[in-house]
Amino acid sequence: MRKILAIDAGGTSTRAVVLDLAGRCFGYGRAGSGNPTASGVDGAVTELGKAAERAVAGDESTTNHESAAIIALAGSVSPLLIERLSERFAALGFGGEPVIEPDLLGTYFSGTFESDGYALIAGTGTVAGRITGGRLALARGGTGWLLGDGGSGYWIGHQVMRAVVASLDGLGPDTALTGLVLDSLHIGTELGSVRGRPHSLVTLMEETYALRPIGLARFAPLAFAASEDEVAREILTSAAGSLAQLLAATRDPGMNGPVVLGGSVLAAGMRVAPSIFAAPLTAAAGGVELIAVPDGVVGAAILGLRRAGVVIDSELFSRLQRGVSELRPSSTAEGPVAG
Amino acid sequence: MRKILAIDAGGTSTRAVVLDLAGRCFGYGRAGSGNPTASGVDGAVTELGKAAERAVAGDESTTNHESAAIIALAGSVSPLLIERLSERFAALGFGGEPVIEPDLLGTYFSGTFESDGYALIAGTGTVAGRITGGRLALARGGTGWLLGDGGSGYWIGHQVMRAVVASLDGLGPDTALTGLVLDSLHIGTELGSVRGRPHSLVTLMEETYALRPIGLARFAPLAFAASEDEVAREILTSAAGSLAQLLAATRDPGMNGPVVLGGSVLAAGMRVAPSIFAAPLTAAAGGVELIAVPDGVVGAAILGLRRAGVVIDSELFSRLQRGVSELRPSSTAEGPVAG
Repeated sequence: MRKILAIDAGGTSTRAVVLDLAGRCFGYGRAGSGNPTASGVDGAVTELGKAAERAVAGDESTTNHESAAIIALAGSVSPLLIERLSERFAALGFGGEPVIEPDLLGTYFSGTFESDGYALIAGTGTVAGRITGGRLALARGGTGWLLGDGGSGYWIGHQVMRAVVASLDGLGPDTALTGLVLDSLHIGTELGSVRGRPHSLVTLMEETYALRPIGLARFAPLAFAASEDEVAREILTSAAGSLAQLLAATRDPGMNGPVVLGGSVLAAGMRVAPSIFAAPLTAAAGGVELIAVPDGVVGAAILGLRRAGVVIDSELFSRLQRGVSELRPSSTAEGPVAG
Repeated sequence: MRKILAIDAGGTSTRAVVLDLAGRCFGYGRAGSGNPTASGVDGAVTELGKAAERAVAGDESTTNHESAAIIALAGSVSPLLIERLSERFAALGFGGEPVIEPDLLGTYFSGTFESDGYALIAGTGTVAGRITGGRLALARGGTGWLLGDGGSGYWIGHQVMRAVVASLDGLGPDTALTGLVLDSLHIGTELGSVRGRPHSLVTLMEETYALRPIGLARFAPLAFAASEDEVAREILTSAAGSLAQLLAATRDPGMNGPVVLGGSVLAAGMRVAPSIFAAPLTAAAGGVELIAVPDGVVGAAILGLRRAGVVIDSELFSRLQRGVSELRPSSTAEGPVAG
């Protein structure tokens, strides 16, 4: 039977599904980061291979020589990665060169099977795109933690840490974030100072500067946890504004279409803080309904089916969504912010 | 003759002066960064030694066994650094352990000899302090590029780069900063795109992510060069606001006193963009006159004299300022932003 190995490779985790051309799902697998920018070529091959192996393991039917793999992924890939993945997937019964597609398309087609629309991802980073005729016509954002990514998990975590440091340094207002951050790093709040600074501030600085900057994304969930706090609320409001601006900048006023939201920040924003996120995003979307998706694996499968010449209708799309959701273990649901 | 070797060790350059207890200056020397956080212990010993050697080289008078060294420096120092500097300075005729003082005191006493007042430094980083009885009673800021330092050279350079990237990505307004940044990196503005992004944006991202983040401070002078541009003006206005807030947070409403400004950002701000910087800083200073100083070497000398029990009066202070300014080569004046 001709099958598709469809993979959504994120910066935190990777999801793979095996399906046939009718959209029936045979197996599902999950592994760590399959993104070569985050994990390097070796790490990406390992994790993509693991996810694929786990998806194939549950499938007892046969796979013919036309079966192929497709991966939705942020950023660019090297010829070396393609070569090594070809070997790895061939051993699992999926021959030929794996096709690489932008993560924006994986996210988009996880929420809709229409050919024209928009996708916005906010996980550790942010990116938005306009899709026409099923292809990515325009992308904005994705410029990384240092130069862009306003409203991303990194950005929110960074603002959380700056707000806590400002508060401890007497330069910013008190905030509930301080207790949450110090607790999460097991830093006590005993009195006493080092060279004129509170002990907790000195320890916090030491621990934070020991992290890779991108590691500050781990503090983003604390803003959602404290969304009643004024400082946290300001950070989230500003994040929602940046994400709305990013989405608006990809919009063509003459082209309506569904708007699909992906990534852990948008998932948390729409679920935990809809009063902050829904209005600006709906306005930026031109009033169309926002579709939030948990990941991009359904979309990767749709991309594989389209590539195989299959015309996607609502029945096929629903079958695929249902199939993936039945196989996806609910216990492995992502936390509020993980990309 | 009993002499003092007084050194101001910055993150970019180091200045040393040899003086006697009457405030007469005998020699002046300059070298690279003598800050152990920026240069490591080996680098700091080398540069502090070079500056000292150059200051001593011009002095043909004798130096007695009571002669000692004093260094104004940001951050903390290790016992190893003290030990190695003791050896190095002893060989130059300055025995005993060199005394280390906060850079805030070096800056403060470069502008005044009064015992009570305030100092604000904005170079690559920012820090402010309240001085009472000639000692540092309170310090705020100095929490570094990632967690604080609003309004610093790093902060301004970072905002410049984010504004240029946003503009090239279609997310922010056009700005004169774009041309200045691309020119400074020798990036052409030819048309063409890579994976849907302008060629210049892709190259800019590659070059910037190859830098250490703190290296973004090198783009701060471009904001001053383009201070008529609306985007640049907004960045500088926001920087001036952060610096004013930092100064205000160190103020004790019950204690007036001179306010001394140090560091390359404040030098450039007061000289190139006084319409942006003067008003908020004057307000934060409670209306007292702001004294801008080029570096902290006069203050290091004052600290050395105070330590030797010399009472500083206006005549001695003026003699010292004049003496240093006569010896300081005008050709080595710092650029608009260098700490």
